[in-house]
Amino acid sequence: MTAHDPRLLAWAYLSRVVQGPSAYMSMLIDELGVEETARAVRNGDLPPAIEEKTRARAHIDTAQRDLDLMEAMGGRLVTPNCADWPAWRMLSFDGLDASGGETAPFVLWVLGSGDLVDLTERSVGIVGTRASTAYGEHVTAEIAGDLAVDGWTVISGAAFGIDGAAHRAALGVGGNTLAVLACGVDRAYPSGHARLLKQIASSGAVISEYPPGTTPAKFRFLARNRLVAALSDGVVVVEAGWRSGARNTANWARKLGRPVMAVPGPVTSASSTGCHRMIREGEAQLVSNAVDVVEASGPFGVGDSAEDAAATRDIDALRGNSRLVYEALPGTGSRSTRELSEESGLLITQVRATLPLLELEGFASSDSSGWFRTR
Amino acid sequence: MTAHDPRLLAWAYLSRVVQGPSAYMSMLIDELGVEETARAVRNGDLPPAIEEKTRARAHIDTAQRDLDLMEAMGGRLVTPNCADWPAWRMLSFDGLDASGGETAPFVLWVLGSGDLVDLTERSVGIVGTRASTAYGEHVTAEIAGDLAVDGWTVISGAAFGIDGAAHRAALGVGGNTLAVLACGVDRAYPSGHARLLKQIASSGAVISEYPPGTTPAKFRFLARNRLVAALSDGVVVVEAGWRSGARNTANWARKLGRPVMAVPGPVTSASSTGCHRMIREGEAQLVSNAVDVVEASGPFGVGDSAEDAAATRDIDALRGNSRLVYEALPGTGSRSTRELSEESGLLITQVRATLPLLELEGFASSDSSGWFRTR
Repeated sequence: MTAHDPRLLAWAYLSRVVQGPSAYMSMLIDELGVEETARAVRNGDLPPAIEEKTRARAHIDTAQRDLDLMEAMGGRLVTPNCADWPAWRMLSFDGLDASGGETAPFVLWVLGSGDLVDLTERSVGIVGTRASTAYGEHVTAEIAGDLAVDGWTVISGAAFGIDGAAHRAALGVGGNTLAVLACGVDRAYPSGHARLLKQIASSGAVISEYPPGTTPAKFRFLARNRLVAALSDGVVVVEAGWRSGARNTANWARKLGRPVMAVPGPVTSASSTGCHRMIREGEAQLVSNAVDVVEASGPFGVGDSAEDAAATRDIDALRGNSRLVYEALPGTGSRSTRELSEESGLLITQVRATLPLLELEGFASSDSSGWFRTR
Repeated sequence: MTAHDPRLLAWAYLSRVVQGPSAYMSMLIDELGVEETARAVRNGDLPPAIEEKTRARAHIDTAQRDLDLMEAMGGRLVTPNCADWPAWRMLSFDGLDASGGETAPFVLWVLGSGDLVDLTERSVGIVGTRASTAYGEHVTAEIAGDLAVDGWTVISGAAFGIDGAAHRAALGVGGNTLAVLACGVDRAYPSGHARLLKQIASSGAVISEYPPGTTPAKFRFLARNRLVAALSDGVVVVEAGWRSGARNTANWARKLGRPVMAVPGPVTSASSTGCHRMIREGEAQLVSNAVDVVEASGPFGVGDSAEDAAATRDIDALRGNSRLVYEALPGTGSRSTRELSEESGLLITQVRATLPLLELEGFASSDSSGWFRTR
């Protein structure tokens, strides 16, 4: 039994009590801090409407046990206080009406050593039906494999069919892949993918916003889909029905401002009808291969190929923490790393890691007074 | 040897001399009449720039022989003076810059007994690659067969591959089909389709704007493609390369304001790449079946199913000669059939055939003073 940081224990407690996204809870944590919020929840010291929702579970404090379990499994709890919290990705929830769950998770339970910021710097969600055909699996493998070779992280939901084919293809070329689950990361779901999930964790990450032991449920799949979309530069649907989880992920991507892509197939194949209809109704752009996907998924992260480097001369091409830090740099005068941390919402360690990259690319420079923009 | 009408001989002569579309010649015929225009061409009595283009062939007058040949083959020459000239379809060339051949044909050589106005009242062009796959031919047969059963005429170019599959499917269900050739209708091109062309002529029509004996040539295929588009309510591309005749037909359709549709296929099939790219670049709408095609091809002609009849309550749904005659009806007062003929550009016989339909649908009525709009 490890002595965990009290803040981490508070996050773990809240994750167990709140179970999934809650815009109100996120706001409360922002205002009161996580420990104070945990105390308020524990004591039922909340507005009645909210108190009702946490009352049933407020007495359950498995934080110590959950964190111990994660440690034993080689996992961890990633919170907005952590250096590898993908803050940039979560920004896309800002300004959305959160009444339908359109809000960032407040923690992520993670199995695997992959850094979440790195893994989601250039990433594509590839999703589709469990009832995939040999054609769909073949095309998924081609696209996911090519993207992974090119340095993109393949994000999916670890389901049978297209999801599994996407993860496997990325693993097959030694690329990055990330699985987002609708249950606790300690549960192998589907159980037939237990070995695949281990492989994903060993090279990338298996994540969930739900605490260990949580069982999968319909509403959790829908919430999970929003994370696949949020963590990706774009979402590709490879075979799907019209009313499908894949289309739900696609809808999330659109809501979050991510490009939605669909792969066509034979019109004689029922597994492609959802893709065709999405293209037909303007919900998705037709893509045939990884080149199409990269084109649709927009400008690349900092420092890729020569061609990409040229593209990143443009400030619009800055992504992730680079973009956040750049935005925090003053137009006139200069700022300290601490000031940049406060302004960007990133940790000082993250700011310190990012500034040299910006300097290298010619976006930032420093003198004795601090850091400033060079363009 | 038949004694042909002098006007018909003049049209036949001009068709041979001019060879294909000529906006200037059409204009001249409009102004001078066809016989006077033929006389001017024969005598080289034209502006120098035009005279140069007709000089080489002005002395060739095979009109009598051409018309005799057509008669012997059971065919005919259809001109703007004929009752089955598809005048409505040709209107779509109005207002186009005709410098690139964007002009109506001035005659159509026809094999087969099908009435061109009837055949093109509700019609869809279905085109595609000669290098079709079994998948492409299967889908073409499904779509063309379903459309033909539903009363649509299937228009294509009688080429190997998708074109042939489209014609055959329409014939197979006892439906209407029309082939537009890039050579004289007396020539079976491709020769492997000699029997198919005979079948098309025996139930529908095989047409060409080129006089008998004309050999196929690259520029004639391009001109032919514009007629496939002009005579159709929409054009469907099933399997095509990016630089293909089918895409050229699609481009004509867009230029003429017709919906362009493309059928997707496996992204692993080279034969579908053109279709996918057209969809991807917004050049074509994705269609999977005949229902999609009918939906995209817009409002129906007068008097189809109950649902269609309801749609045609709307004036915008009037098509073909019905629309031309309706537009010619006065808002106040009334007009005689002769006045309606002059106003609409249709023959009196055509006006007479159309008015009862308009009356039946509640768009027109008559009293002792003549015909008028009822809405």
